[in-house]
Amino acid sequence: MDPRYNLVQAWRINKDGAREFIEDPVTRESPLTIYFNDRELVTLLCTFEYVDELAVGFLYSEGFVRSKEDIREIKTDSGEGVVKVVGRNPAVIAEQTFLKRYITTGCGKGTSFYHLSDAVCRPVESGWRVESSRLFNLMVQAQRRSELFKTTGGVHSSALCTGDEIMFFREDIGRHNTVDKLIGRCFLDGIDTSDKILLTTGRISSEILVKAAKLGVPLIASRSAPTDLALKYAAELGVTVAAFVRNQRMNIYTHPERVVL
Amino acid sequence: MDPRYNLVQAWRINKDGAREFIEDPVTRESPLTIYFNDRELVTLLCTFEYVDELAVGFLYSEGFVRSKEDIREIKTDSGEGVVKVVGRNPAVIAEQTFLKRYITTGCGKGTSFYHLSDAVCRPVESGWRVESSRLFNLMVQAQRRSELFKTTGGVHSSALCTGDEIMFFREDIGRHNTVDKLIGRCFLDGIDTSDKILLTTGRISSEILVKAAKLGVPLIASRSAPTDLALKYAAELGVTVAAFVRNQRMNIYTHPERVVL
Repeated sequence: MDPRYNLVQAWRINKDGAREFIEDPVTRESPLTIYFNDRELVTLLCTFEYVDELAVGFLYSEGFVRSKEDIREIKTDSGEGVVKVVGRNPAVIAEQTFLKRYITTGCGKGTSFYHLSDAVCRPVESGWRVESSRLFNLMVQAQRRSELFKTTGGVHSSALCTGDEIMFFREDIGRHNTVDKLIGRCFLDGIDTSDKILLTTGRISSEILVKAAKLGVPLIASRSAPTDLALKYAAELGVTVAAFVRNQRMNIYTHPERVVL
Repeated sequence: MDPRYNLVQAWRINKDGAREFIEDPVTRESPLTIYFNDRELVTLLCTFEYVDELAVGFLYSEGFVRSKEDIREIKTDSGEGVVKVVGRNPAVIAEQTFLKRYITTGCGKGTSFYHLSDAVCRPVESGWRVESSRLFNLMVQAQRRSELFKTTGGVHSSALCTGDEIMFFREDIGRHNTVDKLIGRCFLDGIDTSDKILLTTGRISSEILVKAAKLGVPLIASRSAPTDLALKYAAELGVTVAAFVRNQRMNIYTHPERVVL
């Protein structure tokens, strides 16, 4: 059985009052504690797979590491639910500000800014273009791949894509985690993201948008809605936002020149 | 216009490649900074309404205050995006542990535990019962009330209900915030929750479940899925979990004796 879910017992009740005893697949939710330089930093609740990516993506998002060379070692202890990352430098500034800037979201984990000036983030400058039909196709591909969602109904997913296909696909109980896992993968593999697309099932809040900008993709596409703050950041950070991408329709909110009809 | 959303310009693209320029209502996402005893504690990203409830609900959830008597003053400055709560006691322990226990979620804001033993939370003991048909009816009522969702597609909602009707209904970009606002309302009004229902559109993760237990309701019902950790906590904390409550069906996972056919 897929270790990402458990079978639990439940009563299914129908409109007519009929009651049926079932075994229902329910998403597992597991704590992952991230250490940086032997210091316990954070515990995330997540779907426990690709946790090395999640740890590295989180550390990059939060400014603890900036390039692969900043990391000396990654040790994962699945039994303990721990990933220990050892950096080459103490990264004292990030650690200090991290504990101060306990800033959380509408629906997301704590992050490190809410004024753009605080976000260590360069605008995405990419002349890359994509046909709208490709975005529709990619979203359909992603839906087909979301096995855990189909089984449990309880996870989000995100994918890093070329214009043609999905490169990496990640499912997690947390929409932020899905993106951090992709960030970690790209960080570890040194992937050029300037011609890639970030697809997600989750809403595009300001935190997700800044993660997309840190990932360096020129376009983020979601089945769901954006927030106004995310669009403000997207305009400034050079990211194209396509939202409500479903049923062969979508809305383009920022930098629409990248989407070709 | 409803101050909870902005009209933004967008291109709507259809399958056939037709492009239409529209003004689209997009949910506003605003930072709210909470002070406790003149100390800056946290900044939440939220839908900026009922922010006094949100601040108080957050402080209660995180263990800073335990009863209304613990609060001397609540000052809200909407222009600055600030709520300042002054307590009668310093609550030193909560503050110290709060900064240490930076624990975040799959999809939720930082919280203060992930082992139940850490959660200051009594089991809900309530002999209260509800007919399954009432839960279906309440979910339909809640859907009808979700004006901001209908307009923007970008928010969650939660409601505190009797068996017959909705008492309080809150929409927010964050599913945790919707529950914290209800917790704050009940805390301020001294509402007996031992015969109330918490309805929500969001998934039932461990953090949401513990919030329900802290709120003291015997039943939480969601349109969406639960996680296995939430169900484990629900079993221990005496909370009935009804999930996938939609289309006149639902699954009851824990303490099913409270749902009468």
